[in-house]
Parts: sequence; structure tokens; C-alpha cells
Amino acid sequence: MRAEYIKKIGCITAVQGFKACGFHAGFKKRRKDFAVICCPTGATWAGVFTRNAVKAAPVKYDIERLADKNPIRAIVINSGSANACTGEQGMKDARATAVLTANTLGCEANEVLVSSTGVIGMPINMNTMEKAIKKTLLALNDDAGDEAAEAILTTDTFVKKNSFEFFIGDKKVRIGGIAKGSGMIHPNMGTMLAYITTDASIAQDVLQRMLAEVTDKTFNCITVDGDTSTNDTLIIMANGMAGNPLIENEESEGYEQFYNALEEMCRYLAQQIARDGEGATKFIEVIVSNAASTEDAVKIGKSVASSNLVKTAMFGKDANWGRVICAIGYSGAKTVLEENIDIVFSSEAGDIIVCQQGTDVPFDEKLAKKILDKKDITILINMNCGDKSAKVWTCDFSYDYVKINADYRS
Amino acid sequence: MRAEYIKKIGCITAVQGFKACGFHAGFKKRRKDFAVICCPTGATWAGVFTRNAVKAAPVKYDIERLADKNPIRAIVINSGSANACTGEQGMKDARATAVLTANTLGCEANEVLVSSTGVIGMPINMNTMEKAIKKTLLALNDDAGDEAAEAILTTDTFVKKNSFEFFIGDKKVRIGGIAKGSGMIHPNMGTMLAYITTDASIAQDVLQRMLAEVTDKTFNCITVDGDTSTNDTLIIMANGMAGNPLIENEESEGYEQFYNALEEMCRYLAQQIARDGEGATKFIEVIVSNAASTEDAVKIGKSVASSNLVKTAMFGKDANWGRVICAIGYSGAKTVLEENIDIVFSSEAGDIIVCQQGTDVPFDEKLAKKILDKKDITILINMNCGDKSAKVWTCDFSYDYVKINADYRS
Repeated sequence: MRAEYIKKIGCITAVQGFKACGFHAGFKKRRKDFAVICCPTGATWAGVFTRNAVKAAPVKYDIERLADKNPIRAIVINSGSANACTGEQGMKDARATAVLTANTLGCEANEVLVSSTGVIGMPINMNTMEKAIKKTLLALNDDAGDEAAEAILTTDTFVKKNSFEFFIGDKKVRIGGIAKGSGMIHPNMGTMLAYITTDASIAQDVLQRMLAEVTDKTFNCITVDGDTSTNDTLIIMANGMAGNPLIENEESEGYEQFYNALEEMCRYLAQQIARDGEGATKFIEVIVSNAASTEDAVKIGKSVASSNLVKTAMFGKDANWGRVICAIGYSGAKTVLEENIDIVFSSEAGDIIVCQQGTDVPFDEKLAKKILDKKDITILINMNCGDKSAKVWTCDFSYDYVKINADYRS
Repeated sequence: MRAEYIKKIGCITAVQGFKACGFHAGFKKRRKDFAVICCPTGATWAGVFTRNAVKAAPVKYDIERLADKNPIRAIVINSGSANACTGEQGMKDARATAVLTANTLGCEANEVLVSSTGVIGMPINMNTMEKAIKKTLLALNDDAGDEAAEAILTTDTFVKKNSFEFFIGDKKVRIGGIAKGSGMIHPNMGTMLAYITTDASIAQDVLQRMLAEVTDKTFNCITVDGDTSTNDTLIIMANGMAGNPLIENEESEGYEQFYNALEEMCRYLAQQIARDGEGATKFIEVIVSNAASTEDAVKIGKSVASSNLVKTAMFGKDANWGRVICAIGYSGAKTVLEENIDIVFSSEAGDIIVCQQGTDVPFDEKLAKKILDKKDITILINMNCGDKSAKVWTCDFSYDYVKINADYRS
């Protein structure tokens, strides 16, 4: 379906009715650190947030707003400080950010969402915030999605963005997205921050259910370091300008098309996040097939993709399948028949079977090195005990992960 | 109790009636790689093994023996290849190793246990094994515990061993132990290999229950990298030569003394393993106090001690308490009241409170660096929501972890 009707065209502001801005406000030393995504006419929205018991103030604030179910007009995002573990002051600051933005844009405070990312436990500099918000009205424009995409980054090394268009009946619909990731990425609402815009017309409850379902198959299937952030946020805004008949339930015209487009977008952004994991030199896809249950398949995939030992072996181009089968063993999957397991390493340089029926098979180490020398690696695990499967995405584990994280605050 | 009646005296062969040997057999290139621990008169034994669903052949073999409940006379251990994921041949090799050893020592095959550690998926070289076993009889002696301790190591950087004596009534009892760890260490039967000898007289069922209980409080409270090995093994042998009245249940004389000594030994060996985690530059103790339940306390401790982000921060001497509270948040503990949590970093250079009631408190960054500059760091987490506590031990996460693991096989 990807090739036929989804045409790539740009970023979040490629969708009609959305404006954005992104600039340096002063939360960070030099890089862009402030963004606003705005839909002046208002947009239906849905969101999924971190499952960490310790939630940042803006996450708590947005979850409150989600209960309102009313349309929103703007999302204000800063990078550099996470406004997490900042107590009552943090909640006051999140609310004040929404109020200031509402005053500037001329809307209600409950039509504004707030996101933050960066160091935990550092209060937001509200002077900086106020100054930034004042500049927003002038800065917002129809073509600044890329700048917003840049402003939400922390230790990311590249911008994550995409957009494409498709049809519902004769109506052209667009969807755009941006994301940031890099560290503290683990399958529990994976990304730290992601924002999706669309001009599709869709009911709030359908959008929320769909987003949660798609998140489980995409963002929740990536892992960088097993740490689940306090700030993870995924928000989608839908302004209805495409003019398609309202998608009001699972049977509505366009439901399937929109679902597929959303899944495609989320998978793309999730994979980009894994690709840009802190210190990553390789993108790794773990494909588990023929497991006894979907739950088992996901557990096995996440266990292998989260293993420091598997990830350092991939960094070292070492076909150390023993670490893969070991991680399968401690995955917690209900059905693990060691003597049924096949493992294949694969890349554009070829495929090589390294473990058959749970034991070693002689293999060409030179070919294995050649395969693992590539940037995109697939680890295929055939459990041979059922018919369920799962895909999980991660990156390798390099010296640079340690370097980046040994002194992130300074 | 430690100081008063437990006197340190040496290693596993400091216990009367035990012999050992350790030498280079050829499983590895140069280092010692073969050990035997022997109790010619036979010893009651107990064991706990990895909970990984993929178990190495020697682990499966030993678990079979545990069902026999008969005394044993020897344990044969090789390092260099793990005999895991080696299929039927692996089981044959484990059995053959027991038979060959029994023939050499003049006992029954079911009186011999087998352990292996090293690379997964590599069959045991049985020629090397046979030659090594033939040398055993001459090599075994009353003073070679240290050599056995050395022979079981893989990527460990130092030998882990201890022994001490205590009294049950007027009978002097000794206990000795050796262990190896380093990588693939995670709270699920923590160490890869540990062997304890004692001359206490104790019934098999009491010994097995006691060992399982003590393991949960010691070896299962260490974590290096979250990977649970296929080969984890902890075996204790008790030959009764101390002449204390048989400890036959929890009320018997000497039960408590022996329990304390065993716990002391297991905690010591477990901490040594954490201290020698792959690439470790620091030993980290995580103390969780005033949690709502013991289960919560353990979950929180393990979550913090397993966090790559916390461990890299410790390596970088960075008082990044945000990562600690984040790991508390995703620990899965039932009761996490963010606004109650206090966090203190401590070492011989002093203590510093960095988080009070879930939010930041201004602290002296210079003092924090000085504290974190030490080799032994304690992270104190006061949950302030109950009266249960737990201690978990780990190490920091350095460049060398990646280096060691990026190409372990070669």
C-alpha cells in the first residue's frame, strides 16, 4: 500500500491549516530550543503519554486537557529542560506557559498543550519562556515545520520528519509528523516527543483509540537503552480541512486509509528514532516469527533488542548468536523451545544462518562479518512453535553512548 | 555479628576435607581454564541455577542430579566454552565429563557435578577435557583453592574468594567460597558460577531451602548489564566434618549461626562480582528505604541499579538524580509517591542530598563531584511511604564495557 497511494511531500506544515515556528530562545546555549505548532482554526486531538509513574509537569497538564476532549489551537514545546520533578512550581510553570501562549495567540488557555524535554529536575526559566512566547505570533508561518522539527531535538543527531498524502474517496488528505528521540527510549510509549498533523476529518474518540493501537505497533516497538522517560508524548491534531466525510467509527469511509497512513507515519518516525539512538552506528530490526503468541513474539523481540550484549556484539560486527538465544531465554516468553529456534543475520550483503534447531551450525565467519559490516542489520528469529510474529527496532551500542551519557548535564 | 565471631582464614580448601585444583587445560589460549573441587568422603549438596529458559547442558545435568539428593564427591568446571546451545551433543559431553571424572577419582558418575562458562554455542573440546581430567588426581591438593578460583574466571579482572570460621556450640565450623561473574549478570540467580564449601553438618533439604532464601537476598540483588546467563550456577557442599549436631530443621542448634555465615559469604561474593562488573570503575550500592513493600523496594533498587543512564552518569561523576527518579518511576513498583522521594549520594567523601520531596534542592556541585569521584558510591533512596527496604549492588558503565563486549568471541 505504501508505494501506490502515499506520496511524500514535506513536513507538519505541508498539511493545510497548520503553522509552526522553531527558534533559539535561550533554554540551551546555542541550538534551537523552542517550537510552537499552531492550528488557528482549532483541531481535534488525541495523545498518548509516558507510562512512567514519575510524569513531567507538562505531561500531567496535557493529560488533564485530554479529559476535556475539546479542540486545541497550539502546542508549545521547549527543549533543554524537562520540567520533570519540579514539584508544584513545575505545574504552575506549565499552566503559565499555556496562559501566556493563549494570550499571545488570542485563544483560551485550555486550547494550548505544553511539552518539555531535557534535563530532569531543573525548573523552567519562565523569563526565557515568556520572551519566546511573545515572539511566536511573528515567527509562526506556513512553511516552518522543519524549524520546529529542529527545535525539539536534544542529543539527536538529525531531524526526524515526514509527510505524505493519500485519498479518501476523491478528497486528498495529508498527514505530517516530526519527532525527537535519542536517549531514554524504551517500549513504553517509545519516543520522547512526536507531533502529527493531518487535515483529515475524524472524531476524537476514534482518533484516540486509533492512536493508542498504532502506538503499540510502532513507537512501543523501539528501544534504545531500556530507560522510559518521564516526558514521552505523542500528540496528533486533525483539523478536518480535507473535507472527507467525518470518520466517526471503525466502519466509516476512510477509516482504513487513514489508519494505514497513521501507522506508516508512526513507523517511519519510530524507526528514525531507533536509527538515531544515542551513539548508534547501526539500525537493527529484530523480526520474530512463528512464536506461540503475539505476546511471546513481542517479549522475545524486545528482550533481544534491549540486550546490551547483543547490541555491543552488533557494534563489534560479531555474529555472537549465543547472546541472541540467551536473551530469548530470559525474555519471559511462555513458550521457548530451545531445540526449535533458528537464527539468521541479514543485511544487504546477504543472509547467514548461524543457529539451527537451537544449536550452532558451521558458518562462514568472513561472510558474517561482511553482513554485519552494513549499517542496516536484520536479526531473524524463527521460534518454530506457532504462527505469531513481531518486529522490534533498535540500534547498536557503541562507545559514544557512554560518552554522550557520562556527562549529559554539563 | 560479622566482626565478633567470624574470622577470615582463606579459601574453599581452608575447609577440612576439601581438595581442589586449577590449571590451564587448553579450552582458552593461555589462562587457567579447568578446575575440580573434591570432597573424597562425599558431601551433602544444594544448588540454585539460572532461570533462563535456555539452560546450558551442564546446568541441565546438575539439575537432574539435584533430584537424586545423594551426596557428591566432585565438581568439574571449565571456562572458555559454555556448553550452552549445543544440543544433544552438549548433554552427551556433560555426562561423559562426569563419567570420566568418576573413573579417575574412583567414584560413581552421579557423584560428580559439571559446570561450564564461556562462549555460548561452542561445543566442548572433549579431547582437551579428557586430558585435563586425567591430570586431576595428581593435581588435587588441600591448598589449591586459589588456583580453582582463578581457573573459573572469564573476563573477570580479579579472583573472588573468601572463607571464615565460626562456632556452633563448642564446634568450630568453616565455610569457604569462590565465584566468577563479570558479564551477563542480572538479578535472576545473579552470578555465573559460585561454589561454597563447609564442614558443617546439615540436612540436604534444609540446606537447599536456606541456599534459595539467601540467594534471593544476595546474588539476586546484583546486576551488571541486565543479561541473565544460560549457565548461572551456585553450589554448596557440606561434609559434616565439623562435628556439630546435624542441623535438621529451622529450630536446630546452629541453624541461625550457619544461616548468617552463609549469607555473609554469599553477600561478599555477590558484591565482589558487582565490583568486578565488565568495565567497572566504581562499585555502587543502591539502598531503598521506607518503601511500601519489600517487593517495591527490590523493584526500585533493581530498576535504578540496572539503568544504563544512571550507570553512565556514575561513570561520569555526574550527580544526575533525574535519571535515578526516572528509573524509580518506571520500576513497576506499586506505590511511587513522587512528592515523597528523597535522594542522597554518598561516599567516604561525604553525603549530599540532591532531591527532596521529589524536586530539586540546590546543592554544591563541587562537593557532589568530590563524592562521586570515589570508588565506592551509595545511592540512598528514601521513598517515605512505608517501612520496607532493600539493597542492590551494581557497578558503573564505562567505555570498557563496550570494548570488552564488542568482540568477546575473538
